[in-house]
Amino acid sequence: MAEPRDTVVLAYSGGLDTSCILVWLKEQGYTVIAFLANIGQKEDFDAARKKALALGAEKVYIQDVCREFVEEFIWPAVQANALYEDRYLLGTALARPCIARRLVLVAKEQGARYIAHGATGKGNDQVRFELSCYALCPSIKVIAPWRMPEFYQRFPGRRELMEYAQKHGIPVPVTPKAPWSMDENLMHISYEAGILENPKNRAPLDLYTKTCDPTTSPDIPDELEIEFEKGVPVKVTNTKNGVTHRSALELFMYLNDIAGKHGVGRIDIVENRFVGMKSRGIYETPAGTILYHAHLDIEAFTMDREVRKIKQGLSLKFSELVYNGFWYSPECEFLQHCIARSQEAVAGTVRVSVFKGQVYVLGRESPHSLYNEELVR
Amino acid sequence: MAEPRDTVVLAYSGGLDTSCILVWLKEQGYTVIAFLANIGQKEDFDAARKKALALGAEKVYIQDVCREFVEEFIWPAVQANALYEDRYLLGTALARPCIARRLVLVAKEQGARYIAHGATGKGNDQVRFELSCYALCPSIKVIAPWRMPEFYQRFPGRRELMEYAQKHGIPVPVTPKAPWSMDENLMHISYEAGILENPKNRAPLDLYTKTCDPTTSPDIPDELEIEFEKGVPVKVTNTKNGVTHRSALELFMYLNDIAGKHGVGRIDIVENRFVGMKSRGIYETPAGTILYHAHLDIEAFTMDREVRKIKQGLSLKFSELVYNGFWYSPECEFLQHCIARSQEAVAGTVRVSVFKGQVYVLGRESPHSLYNEELVR
Amino acid sequence: MAEPRDTVVLAYSGGLDTSCILVWLKEQGYTVIAFLANIGQKEDFDAARKKALALGAEKVYIQDVCREFVEEFIWPAVQANALYEDRYLLGTALARPCIARRLVLVAKEQGARYIAHGATGKGNDQVRFELSCYALCPSIKVIAPWRMPEFYQRFPGRRELMEYAQKHGIPVPVTPKAPWSMDENLMHISYEAGILENPKNRAPLDLYTKTCDPTTSPDIPDELEIEFEKGVPVKVTNTKNGVTHRSALELFMYLNDIAGKHGVGRIDIVENRFVGMKSRGIYETPAGTILYHAHLDIEAFTMDREVRKIKQGLSLKFSELVYNGFWYSPECEFLQHCIARSQEAVAGTVRVSVFKGQVYVLGRESPHSLYNEELVR
Amino acid sequence: MAEPRDTVVLAYSGGLDTSCILVWLKEQGYTVIAFLANIGQKEDFDAARKKALALGAEKVYIQDVCREFVEEFIWPAVQANALYEDRYLLGTALARPCIARRLVLVAKEQGARYIAHGATGKGNDQVRFELSCYALCPSIKVIAPWRMPEFYQRFPGRRELMEYAQKHGIPVPVTPKAPWSMDENLMHISYEAGILENPKNRAPLDLYTKTCDPTTSPDIPDELEIEFEKGVPVKVTNTKNGVTHRSALELFMYLNDIAGKHGVGRIDIVENRFVGMKSRGIYETPAGTILYHAHLDIEAFTMDREVRKIKQGLSLKFSELVYNGFWYSPECEFLQHCIARSQEAVAGTVRVSVFKGQVYVLGRESPHSLYNEELVR
Repeated sequence: MAEPRDTVVLAYSGGLDTSCILVWLKEQGYTVIAFLANIGQKEDFDAARKKALALGAEKVYIQDVCREFVEEFIWPAVQANALYEDRYLLGTALARPCIARRLVLVAKEQGARYIAHGATGKGNDQVRFELSCYALCPSIKVIAPWRMPEFYQRFPGRRELMEYAQKHGIPVPVTPKAPWSMDENLMHISYEAGILENPKNRAPLDLYTKTCDPTTSPDIPDELEIEFEKGVPVKVTNTKNGVTHRSALELFMYLNDIAGKHGVGRIDIVENRFVGMKSRGIYETPAGTILYHAHLDIEAFTMDREVRKIKQGLSLKFSELVYNGFWYSPECEFLQHCIARSQEAVAGTVRVSVFKGQVYVLGRESPHSLYNEELVR
Repeated sequence: MAEPRDTVVLAYSGGLDTSCILVWLKEQGYTVIAFLANIGQKEDFDAARKKALALGAEKVYIQDVCREFVEEFIWPAVQANALYEDRYLLGTALARPCIARRLVLVAKEQGARYIAHGATGKGNDQVRFELSCYALCPSIKVIAPWRMPEFYQRFPGRRELMEYAQKHGIPVPVTPKAPWSMDENLMHISYEAGILENPKNRAPLDLYTKTCDPTTSPDIPDELEIEFEKGVPVKVTNTKNGVTHRSALELFMYLNDIAGKHGVGRIDIVENRFVGMKSRGIYETPAGTILYHAHLDIEAFTMDREVRKIKQGLSLKFSELVYNGFWYSPECEFLQHCIARSQEAVAGTVRVSVFKGQVYVLGRESPHSLYNEELVR
Repeated sequence: MAEPRDTVVLAYSGGLDTSCILVWLKEQGYTVIAFLANIGQKEDFDAARKKALALGAEKVYIQDVCREFVEEFIWPAVQANALYEDRYLLGTALARPCIARRLVLVAKEQGARYIAHGATGKGNDQVRFELSCYALCPSIKVIAPWRMPEFYQRFPGRRELMEYAQKHGIPVPVTPKAPWSMDENLMHISYEAGILENPKNRAPLDLYTKTCDPTTSPDIPDELEIEFEKGVPVKVTNTKNGVTHRSALELFMYLNDIAGKHGVGRIDIVENRFVGMKSRGIYETPAGTILYHAHLDIEAFTMDREVRKIKQGLSLKFSELVYNGFWYSPECEFLQHCIARSQEAVAGTVRVSVFKGQVYVLGRESPHSLYNEELVR
Repeated sequence: MAEPRDTVVLAYSGGLDTSCILVWLKEQGYTVIAFLANIGQKEDFDAARKKALALGAEKVYIQDVCREFVEEFIWPAVQANALYEDRYLLGTALARPCIARRLVLVAKEQGARYIAHGATGKGNDQVRFELSCYALCPSIKVIAPWRMPEFYQRFPGRRELMEYAQKHGIPVPVTPKAPWSMDENLMHISYEAGILENPKNRAPLDLYTKTCDPTTSPDIPDELEIEFEKGVPVKVTNTKNGVTHRSALELFMYLNDIAGKHGVGRIDIVENRFVGMKSRGIYETPAGTILYHAHLDIEAFTMDREVRKIKQGLSLKFSELVYNGFWYSPECEFLQHCIARSQEAVAGTVRVSVFKGQVYVLGRESPHSLYNEELVR
């Protein structure tokens, strides 16, 4: 039981779980402030606000973090060609420290000593979330109900949650729950658990939400020119219709559109979670996949070979740290600095074709190219 | 000028360059033995034999090395997930030590003190070739005409070669030379130089020879089950028609067929050559691309996370060494041993879909899986 | 409270702490089997046996593990040139898995479901101990009283332990406790905590027990010839008096004598513990220090440069894993295998001088040397 | 034969070899400018100047580079804890790029198109020298007489050089040549070749010139406090007599004195040269050895563990590059930048004792220590 006036900032999603947690935290005596980051997920934010207030939240903060997510989290990953275990572009892992930073900010502004989240005790996200919060505010205390016996023993299954919801006036979803869990943001969406848990089972065709099925995607490729400076994209042009975007957020969203339309960015993998177990995940990362290929190309074109080898080792480590939630660690900051240094002359334009789930590099040019056509001849 | 009876084994391709070199070596006083490896390239081997004899070769050896190429060179690369600079599957680099080994064997059997090749002085292949030959037979002497002033000053351009050919009865190709150079084997084909030298220029659509154009490839995917033992494929089954292959060479050729039919394995990259310059290459590696994805998947599924991290570092180094021609070095043998050790429990079956230039992993199962469905739940 | 007949095997040291733990475990209802490894520490093993029985131990096992400690734990570290954070030769870290293996064996033989130890909650040894036990016997349960509130709250200080001892007839040490803690085995002794905690404080001159003070050690060096095969010492000869030892244990003990006599092997460092904090330790590792220098020399003399670079990276990782208690992990076994492979031709004789705290390499020779005197000239 | 007025800047040492080279270059038609760096070696610079002029040098430049050697070359190595193959502190390797930079500067100022040096064709120094010159001035041409047949065939042995010297009025050394070769600078001296070539032979006792024999060095230790900021020493105090030095050059020279007096810094190793062969060298690095130990200690005390692991990998690579002469390469500059970044909080004071060839760390303190005495307790 909390002290009478203890305040907790809850990472609220609007869904059943965190709604129940909100009510449960109030039951425990906490004053609850709901925080919901708009990080690009499909969500009715107004409805979520109303719902949280109706459930007794003292205040509700809904903050759009899309731009900072792209500029401060996705861009460093693009510079690093960050890839966990050779395949995963780290879509969820990059979002956690972005959200946590705002959450800690709200807690500090509101004088709250507690932060709560709805992540489970077997996943990566609890780790990422909590390492970020503690790094940014060592005095904060994190409440993780799904790791507390008094909570998880009370709610052993979805049925108990539903009952609790009905009893406390928590709106219950009318559509049946998908037989897997999802996590979405501007960069990616993940599907795991449920019927996907058996790694042998093929993912259902109707699972995907961010990309079209390549078997029915357009029969004509789109071609893009992506311009980089210091290793980050600064301009995207569709060479067929001349559409151009220059701001980080807009060009990233446009790449999401184009990649999604052509079914680019789907993977089905088994990965090693931080907590030690292997886990099967299906991911869509449309814009991230295009940028991975385009950045790799411009980097190889403009970077000294030996610098690149060293940078490759640093990026491997960076990817591991990001996956494991160490974004705000001294070592991750050190690596981010070193990697950024390596990108100073990574500039130029890559032309790519996007088609049927695939990104093809067609050519590249750069003011800083180390390529010497005379020499090759 | 050679001693009267000095014998040289020439790595003969049947083309204009090595035909001229054959005649030129005879002019220098050498007895020339032509050696031609059948490593899966499209070639009229009978015609090549007759041509070499007609040009004055003392003997001609044409040896089929396809099976050993797959089993002893490609398989270790599959185990390593070998990738140079994040993209190149090392198709040419793997073939060189396979060919060189046979060449040295022929030289030893024939008591030849010299080996000659037609690789140029700016490329990787001279290095790969010569490092292999010297490692296998330190007493051999390599003759590289394209690095000898008396040769390259005599043949500054193609015109001079043609004139020399006509003068010496060397058959001149009737079809015009492709405006780029190619190197082909069972695993891959490379295109570079000529009009491809400008890295901005898009590759012509009719350049590709091992894979179909994804825009016109079949609209229905093929699905394959690929079974691995100790990290190498031991069985491939087409789940639609039940076609199955079990031997290394046959299953590799079948994967080439399927991948080629669906346009899988094309890349356009700029890479760092051993000799220091950056070079643009366009590659097709059909079967290799499928196996890269399938092996990555079964490895992630069955290997301990921490072992895999260490193995990943070893593979990076292995790929670099292979690219640079150090196959027969102590360090490469050490790495190959360590990587093989890591593969002992890499076994199981991966199901993939092959479609429109893309390989999708659909699911996997393994007797040695470290995946624990109970634990994930 | 334990089930009536639950048996626990206690890692017993004969000291105050584990004596109290022994009695306390009995109070909790356990049947206690005391296990004490003779791993080269100075200890009255007979007295320890009598004491444990007097305190109510059901059985007492005292096992001499010195030979296996040298051959199976120290030798792999010598092959690796294992060094944690550039300085620590891992003396304690190597002993833990050696002891734990025997402890688990006793537990299995005796059908005990529990193992208990007296390591604290801030140190490395709890981790090394428990990771080893769980790796070797996943079903075992470890009892760590110093991490259990019911124990550490009862014994907040040494006074409470003493009172408890007196009350339960536990013999209380008559000599005052040293103002630091020690851990000793055949390879090394560590001193930490107490007055040493302040990293600025110089260690007292009378602290050291395994090595003489270099300021008063002999004024005449000893010279040794150390012969290696496969990277491990197989023969040590004192060139002044011809004394020779060939067995692993005997030669290691002889090196301890010589190094100890000349004050070799003292270090004063601050290191990073597994649990995250920095800690100051003073160590003596006499024989280990000689072997580190001698092995480094014979390895550099006989190993291919590029293999050595790769091996150096593997050894760094190996040292980290050993320090952190992962001896029985898949990755540590993988590394040990790879490192051993690199040692196959590491053979020859190194001559060293031992004098005033220092080991000087004087020369070396090897049947497998890659050194070519002709070439150097 | 050079064009009539071609000018060459010769890296002149004042010794027999480069004196003969000076005269020989003039014979070839070059105008010769002699350049001699005072980098801390024992040398009669005035005599060297006169000799060069007498031999026909157009100009003689003698420049004191000691301060920049310490600040710009040794300090980065101290920050890196740079060690080649676990033992060599890189004394010669660090001096070469320092000298080469000045040499190139002189060549540019004098409009010379050529630089010449007296390094042999089997050593590292030719490589270090030439890589530095070409990196700093790609248009320069290096003349390496010992690699030119017209030179080395004319001077197959020392006798021919002596004859040439006598014939051309080159002063011939009156003392017999030491039966080994030496290279000295402020940081170290190396001895190799001659009777040292056999790696089994013990070095003669009278070989050493920078350090006393530990068997006869003082029986009383000196104690020093070395203060670091950003990973470099900024103050050295002898705690016994209060002598203090603060400037880089002075404190380094003082450390040389103290270490030399106590016989600190001698090693006898076999190392792998860049050109591939193994070579035996005996080195003295007095101040460098003290700083290696002191910096290691303050770094371990103040740096985050995980940052340090990454930095350790970067330093390994840095040491290799420096050894191999790549100081001015993009990768070395990248590493130097990253390593410097890691040193920002490496500050504090280390107390060491220097005695009988050994450096003992006695204690340390720091304003930025990550050490937490409370936590350890």
